[in-house]
Amino acid sequence: KVLWTVLVTMLGYASSLPVGEDALCTAEDLAKYRIIFIGKWSQTAFPKQYPLYRPPAQWSSLLGVTHSSDYSMWKKNEYASNGVRDFAEKGEAWALMKEIEEAGEKIQSVHGIFSAPAISSGTGQTSTELEAHPRHPLVSFVVRIVPSPDWFVGIDSLNLCEGGRWMDEVSVDLFPYDAGTDSGFTFSSPNFATIPQDTVTEITCSSPSHPANSFYYPKLKILPPIAQVTMVKLKKSQPGLSAPFINLPAKSNEIIDTVS
Amino acid sequence: KVLWTVLVTMLGYASSLPVGEDALCTAEDLAKYRIIFIGKWSQTAFPKQYPLYRPPAQWSSLLGVTHSSDYSMWKKNEYASNGVRDFAEKGEAWALMKEIEEAGEKIQSVHGIFSAPAISSGTGQTSTELEAHPRHPLVSFVVRIVPSPDWFVGIDSLNLCEGGRWMDEVSVDLFPYDAGTDSGFTFSSPNFATIPQDTVTEITCSSPSHPANSFYYPKLKILPPIAQVTMVKLKKSQPGLSAPFINLPAKSNEIIDTVS
Repeated sequence: KVLWTVLVTMLGYASSLPVGEDALCTAEDLAKYRIIFIGKWSQTAFPKQYPLYRPPAQWSSLLGVTHSSDYSMWKKNEYASNGVRDFAEKGEAWALMKEIEEAGEKIQSVHGIFSAPAISSGTGQTSTELEAHPRHPLVSFVVRIVPSPDWFVGIDSLNLCEGGRWMDEVSVDLFPYDAGTDSGFTFSSPNFATIPQDTVTEITCSSPSHPANSFYYPKLKILPPIAQVTMVKLKKSQPGLSAPFINLPAKSNEIIDTVS
Repeated sequence: KVLWTVLVTMLGYASSLPVGEDALCTAEDLAKYRIIFIGKWSQTAFPKQYPLYRPPAQWSSLLGVTHSSDYSMWKKNEYASNGVRDFAEKGEAWALMKEIEEAGEKIQSVHGIFSAPAISSGTGQTSTELEAHPRHPLVSFVVRIVPSPDWFVGIDSLNLCEGGRWMDEVSVDLFPYDAGTDSGFTFSSPNFATIPQDTVTEITCSSPSHPANSFYYPKLKILPPIAQVTMVKLKKSQPGLSAPFINLPAKSNEIIDTVS
C-alpha cells in the first residue's frame, strides 16, 4: 500500500501557501494530525548574536488553530492583531486565544485551538495533536522566538485538504517574521514600540538591510530554516496516543541531526 | 435545571486527593472538559524575593495527561521521573511527553496528553481542553514556577468521575512543590543538583525551615494559594469552542480580582 504523501518544502514563503479564497474540502470526516515542531535555531546555523544567557535561545509555547478562510490568525504584509502582538512580544497567549474564541462564536470560522509546550533551547522539538474539519481545513500557528523584540515563526492558513482528500503528511521549513509592533533590531533589544504599527514582514538575511540586525548575513542568499513543522495524519484506528511521536528520539534535540 | 456542581477547594494537599487504588468509572462515554489554570503569584501575596527581572515571575506551559491508576505523572513523597525533573528544572517537556507516550503504548494506562500555553506573568491564566475516558478518568498535570530551581504546581491523579458520573465542575487551589532534583533555595538560585535525588515535597511557609527560602513566611499559618485550576465539563452539544472560556475576561490577569 502506497502512502500518499505530499511533502511540501517551501523556502522562504511559508506564509503564501496557495490556499483558495474559499477553500472547499469535500472530505467527509474530521481528520486528526500529530503536529511536530522542530527548532533549528543553533549557534552553528545562526552564529550572529546567538543568545546564550538570560534567557538563552528558546521557543515559546506553540499556539495554533484550525479554521476556515473566514478567519486569519496572521498574514504577511498585513497588520498583526493585538493578540498576535502580545504573543509575539511577550509570549502571552490569552488575548490571542480570546480572539480565536470570538471568531469561533461569531462567524463559526474556527474549529479548534491547539497548543504545544515551549522548548527550552533553540534546537529541540515539541508536539501535540490537532483536529481539522472539512469546513475548517486550514491550519495556522505561531511560536515566539525567545528572546526577541516581536519575532516569531508560524504557518498562515495551510490547507490540509487537497483535492478533496486529507493530506497524509506535510512538512514546511519555517523562517522568522517580524510582527511589526516593536522596533528592536536584535534578539535582546529593549522594548521600543513601533508607532504607528507596521505590518508583519519576513526577516531575511538582507532585510532589514542593516548590519545591526541579528539575522543580517550579507554573504548568504537565504537564511537556513530556523525551524520546521511536520503534520502527520493519524489513522482512524489509532487513538491519540498510539501513533504519537512517529519514532522521534528520546531527547528533543537529537532529531536535529537526523532531519534534513 | 440545577447544575450538579462539585466544588473542591483543598488547602495544601491537592496531591492527596481521595482516589481509590482502582479508580473505577461507570460513566459510559468520553467526557470533555475545559481546564483553566489561574496564576495567583503576585508580589502582594508573595512579597519575599518576588522575581521582577530576567526573568520576571511567570509560569511555564501546562503539560497534563488523562490516565488510569496504572500511571502516575508525579506523586508527593516519591521520586520524580527524569521527565518531571527536566520539566520542573528547565520547562523542557519532551522527556515527560515521551514517558507518557510509553505508558500509553506499553500498558494502555494513558488516554491523552494536553497542554496549555505559558503565562508571561505571575498573575494570569491559560486554558485548554482535555478528554477523559471511563477507563482513564484521572487527570494529572504540572506547571513549572519560573524562575525557580525545580519548583512546580500541579495535580496528581484527580478523579473526574465520582459515583459513576462525570463531575460538572471541580476547582482546586494549588501550592508549590519541590521536585527534589535541585538544591536551590530561592527563585533565582543557580543550578545545584541534589545528589542523591530527593523525593517530591510540598513547600510550605515553614518548610524548608530556613529564612533564606523564598516561601518562608514564619508569621503565616499557611501560604496563600499560588495558583488555582478549574475544570468545567463541556456539554455534549457543545463543540470545542462554543463553551470555551466560561466568560473569563479579555485580559488574562483581570480574573485575579474576581476569583476568591
